[in-house]
Amino acid sequence: MMEIVRIPTKAHAFIQEQKKAGKTIGLVPTMGALHQGHAYLIEKCKRENDFTVCSIYVNPAQFNNQKDFDTYPDLFEQDIAMVKALGCNAVFAPSHQAMYPEGAGENLLQFNFGKLASELEGRYRPGHFSGVGVVVAKLLNIIAPHKAYFGQKDLQQYLIIKKLCRDLSFQTEIVMCPTKREEDGLAMSSRNLRLTKTEREKAPLLYSVLSEAVLELKSGKKASQVKQKAFDEIAKEPMFKPEYVEVVSLESFEILSGQLTENAAICVSAHLGNARLIDNLLVQV
Amino acid sequence: MMEIVRIPTKAHAFIQEQKKAGKTIGLVPTMGALHQGHAYLIEKCKRENDFTVCSIYVNPAQFNNQKDFDTYPDLFEQDIAMVKALGCNAVFAPSHQAMYPEGAGENLLQFNFGKLASELEGRYRPGHFSGVGVVVAKLLNIIAPHKAYFGQKDLQQYLIIKKLCRDLSFQTEIVMCPTKREEDGLAMSSRNLRLTKTEREKAPLLYSVLSEAVLELKSGKKASQVKQKAFDEIAKEPMFKPEYVEVVSLESFEILSGQLTENAAICVSAHLGNARLIDNLLVQV
Repeated sequence: MMEIVRIPTKAHAFIQEQKKAGKTIGLVPTMGALHQGHAYLIEKCKRENDFTVCSIYVNPAQFNNQKDFDTYPDLFEQDIAMVKALGCNAVFAPSHQAMYPEGAGENLLQFNFGKLASELEGRYRPGHFSGVGVVVAKLLNIIAPHKAYFGQKDLQQYLIIKKLCRDLSFQTEIVMCPTKREEDGLAMSSRNLRLTKTEREKAPLLYSVLSEAVLELKSGKKASQVKQKAFDEIAKEPMFKPEYVEVVSLESFEILSGQLTENAAICVSAHLGNARLIDNLLVQV
Repeated sequence: MMEIVRIPTKAHAFIQEQKKAGKTIGLVPTMGALHQGHAYLIEKCKRENDFTVCSIYVNPAQFNNQKDFDTYPDLFEQDIAMVKALGCNAVFAPSHQAMYPEGAGENLLQFNFGKLASELEGRYRPGHFSGVGVVVAKLLNIIAPHKAYFGQKDLQQYLIIKKLCRDLSFQTEIVMCPTKREEDGLAMSSRNLRLTKTEREKAPLLYSVLSEAVLELKSGKKASQVKQKAFDEIAKEPMFKPEYVEVVSLESFEILSGQLTENAAICVSAHLGNARLIDNLLVQV
């Protein structure tokens, strides 16, 4: 039987009971509109913990774009059926009133994650990572899991959540899982639901451009040249509006421009129709 | 028997065992150099919880003044004897290395608590409240107490910690306890140890000026006039260098200037010799 809990204090008490019974708790935080990437996180969580909680909550504090928030896919019934089938033990699906009784606007405390959050998504989505920090802190405090699972597609988010936990001594282990892809390479994302059929056919370009760029970086080409070429290739396709292509240090998330001498990632963001897509690949040197 | 734990993960595991055994946990966070104000917090904590933890840790991240940090009183042996005599169940006394393995400087995430932190202490101690937020979040995550106890002398700090817990859904109840005073009215503080005999004799002036100001506020005098008069009276005493006297809303912590129509506090900060003293009194209308 899978519990669906909507009230934070009840969720906390319920999970504390599981802990008292000696169970280890794993959390998979989601914004719903679940896809196979989420299923992978949940399956991994189940393997590694006695009790798996999936949270389904579209966090207003992390949306810098009201339209993006208003149109974020809502497939709650379908999501519940899916997590049940996957064998989740509990779903935490709070209301906005329960999560932000005083609103999710400027009255909230703000996080500044420093240089980790200043580039890439941080540059194009002001306030986004502060809102991510707030909701992740809330979920970690309410559920207090032993482990929590995040996807590599949101690589910068993962690194910021790692920093949040390290700097504030959260006792949860943060686990990153590889990006799940469609057969044609497109990174799975709830926002893919917004693509028209034609856009969906063009969408794998991001992955093929990134894959080519990784080979070039590994062959010793300068990061500044590789990222410019990748950007131009995306921009050449009229349906895409690329925002950035960046090569960053996996350690510091600083932007790299020369030949790679450390492990890195190449990250892209582009608008395609009504969707803003992001993706990245790791480059081990 | 009182446990002294120095390692955060060990402290966390130890407290989790107490919780599993059904005990409620109370935390009294301190920076050591304990006085009767701390004793009062510990006694209250013991009455209200099954298991009382006192943390003793001088948090570098909240000091905006290196000299203040370097000369902060260290009376560890005496502190341990005192909390033992008071019947504390455990002391958490971590090293700096354990609390800030990557340092407590600019690499740390920063909190912005908004208008609550912009005036009074926030104005005179830039970065102070961010550092307070970081260490309190750490302590709440490591100990995960049901209740945590703070003194009213640090009123603005208390309100910021309440906001931290509300905004990030910490499951700890934050309890404020009245300021304990010496017989002559001086608010107890570890920094009083820095006063010379002559300074110590002058120090109660802050309390007497605040007490007089409360009567004036209650009698309907304008806050702007009352605080100016109080400031001037402190400044008249050559040993004192007052920083601010402010009347603030207890609800929003906004600075008030007119006749009081809501519950408020009058707050003072002044340098006296090598000590920077703060104090406040509540004004119920």
